Amino acid sequence: MKNVAILGSTGSIGINALKVIEAFPEYFNVVGLSSFSNIRLLEKQAIKFKPSYATVVDHKKSKELDRVLSKRNLKVLSGAEGLNILASHKKVDILIVAISGAAAIYPLLAGIEARKHICLANKESIVMAGSIVMKRLQKRGGVLVPVDSEHSAIFQCINRASISEVSQLFLTGSGGSLHNISKAHFSRLKIDQVLNHPKWKMGKKITVDSATLMNKGLEIIEAHHLFDTPIDRIKLLIHPEAVVHSMCEFVDGSVIAQLGITDMKLPIQFALTYPGRYKTPFQKLDFSGVKNFTFTQPNTMKYPCLSLAMAAAKIGGTSTAVLNAADEIAVGAFLNGKIGFLKIPAIIEKVLINHRYIESPTLDQIFESDKWAREECARLI
Amino acid sequence: MKNVAILGSTGSIGINALKVIEAFPEYFNVVGLSSFSNIRLLEKQAIKFKPSYATVVDHKKSKELDRVLSKRNLKVLSGAEGLNILASHKKVDILIVAISGAAAIYPLLAGIEARKHICLANKESIVMAGSIVMKRLQKRGGVLVPVDSEHSAIFQCINRASISEVSQLFLTGSGGSLHNISKAHFSRLKIDQVLNHPKWKMGKKITVDSATLMNKGLEIIEAHHLFDTPIDRIKLLIHPEAVVHSMCEFVDGSVIAQLGITDMKLPIQFALTYPGRYKTPFQKLDFSGVKNFTFTQPNTMKYPCLSLAMAAAKIGGTSTAVLNAADEIAVGAFLNGKIGFLKIPAIIEKVLINHRYIESPTLDQIFESDKWAREECARLI
Repeated sequence: MKNVAILGSTGSIGINALKVIEAFPEYFNVVGLSSFSNIRLLEKQAIKFKPSYATVVDHKKSKELDRVLSKRNLKVLSGAEGLNILASHKKVDILIVAISGAAAIYPLLAGIEARKHICLANKESIVMAGSIVMKRLQKRGGVLVPVDSEHSAIFQCINRASISEVSQLFLTGSGGSLHNISKAHFSRLKIDQVLNHPKWKMGKKITVDSATLMNKGLEIIEAHHLFDTPIDRIKLLIHPEAVVHSMCEFVDGSVIAQLGITDMKLPIQFALTYPGRYKTPFQKLDFSGVKNFTFTQPNTMKYPCLSLAMAAAKIGGTSTAVLNAADEIAVGAFLNGKIGFLKIPAIIEKVLINHRYIESPTLDQIFESDKWAREECARLI
Repeated sequence: MKNVAILGSTGSIGINALKVIEAFPEYFNVVGLSSFSNIRLLEKQAIKFKPSYATVVDHKKSKELDRVLSKRNLKVLSGAEGLNILASHKKVDILIVAISGAAAIYPLLAGIEARKHICLANKESIVMAGSIVMKRLQKRGGVLVPVDSEHSAIFQCINRASISEVSQLFLTGSGGSLHNISKAHFSRLKIDQVLNHPKWKMGKKITVDSATLMNKGLEIIEAHHLFDTPIDRIKLLIHPEAVVHSMCEFVDGSVIAQLGITDMKLPIQFALTYPGRYKTPFQKLDFSGVKNFTFTQPNTMKYPCLSLAMAAAKIGGTSTAVLNAADEIAVGAFLNGKIGFLKIPAIIEKVLINHRYIESPTLDQIFESDKWAREECARLI
């Protein structure tokens, strides 16, 4: 029986993680949950899964939950500090980091320090601070399994081989909501068209990132850190069927691919059970009909965000944190109707150009760059 | 530096194995070669690779080679005994079993007994005597890496996972030369049409087996033994592009696939270097253009040989040896123009029906069944 803590249990990944855990009551026990402020759902989850700890980042909401659950055997923690306590708690065997944003960085590092088995579903910690995170992980010698379907796929394809035997990574992407829309129409795009993703149901911000391919750019940056692979050896392939979740080419010419249905419960389960595999109670890939898989090269002219991400990744240092922050602000402005779709890459590019990057930044410098980029981006909008 | 012996060095796999070895002079050294009777080529190979031993199964040809190479530092062995001596020789680290037919069984067992690193490119040893071979291998605890592209793929996909974590194997096949020809035309098929394989250049017998899908049936039987997987958990998928060489579905719903170009040098190299991987000097898979992969179910009505193989596999015991022998004779008769294409499965079926199978046969009983099936098949033709 493994004790699991979920940072961000009320988000999409957190909810799915609880579904997986629920399916394996003999293997997993929830000892900690957390939410930024969604105490309604957190309360329900706490009553059902009976954790020893629940962290609410919002202090006021934390007190509210404490009152509601006062008669239960549950300690309510609060603030960023509450996340760190949970992440490194001696009762925790497996730590699922499923909160979004830079807020994940410190609890992730706390979990690494405490040598937890980490299931990582947070993008920003690797995009912003990948070098620092991976260095700490290597030093402590722990296990970090990515939850994102593409990185889970690459992790499974490499499967403990030496990274020196890996020649290329093929990261796949469905092409997003604009795959079949010509660039000539991009200036007149409605928000609804951009949010209409063909394969994955996700939040609004990430769906826009899928449409611009910034999402793939950020994933390439993550893969670069997670699998210690140079950026120019990570190739994006557009694969609209979204069955092959990514591939790894080895030096001997053999390519290993991972396939599965588009359900986040599968990579979550893999991350939880690694290095073992448990029989899934969920749906599996069906080969009984005709299956067609297509792979094409991305059109970099159509998707300038992809090129921006690759450029930022090659520069490295604080550039990727700036890219990420500028994207968040620009996409927010697009979703609020303040800027058009084509302005997203234009503004990010300007922020990157105006940035004075630091090659080997400290965490503080990364957070400062993040803050600067947000302000600069807002100023440009 | 590893010392390699190749049983069957003058055949297609043997020739390709020497090309691989030639590409890695710092890793591999040839200590033994063998041929049934092709002493012309064996002589050239011996002069080039300077092995300590060369076995010629044909006694007369063996003496001839001995005379020709008398001044060289080479011991010429002969007969089946010469294969066994080479297979178990203390100088040999890696044994490539690339002779065709049942003649491979004894030297393979000798190699297993002597705990050689075995690269297996012989079908009959597993189809006929898979239970015995795998039991001996398990007892001796050695390494046996299959060379056949499908089995190499499955071996790479399973990659040391526990077989209890494997739920299904998807063995792929291009569909053979008759994939796009309707069954209505099968009664009028010309030998040349049958021999026109779209993807792999192989011998005549195996190309006919590809056309009837008997080849896939035999491969399923091999996979059943090599990967200790029940027959009904091994599925054939028709994949005309022949890029995905096979797949493995794990219990958690994750499917791992192996992809590569259609060049036997790649699986040979993998088998030689396993568990490591060396940088290939050969061509690799190219994703720069558009790639389309198709997977469909085989039409069992069109390919009765496939059903016959599955049936024989489920019965087990001597049935698969009988299937294999009957197929060899029937295909031979087809290639000699003695019977039509549709007679191949009809005759094999009759031989299987007339066979009194033994559930757990000894090697002698397997060889007797093989002999009986050949005679019975010839009688029916």
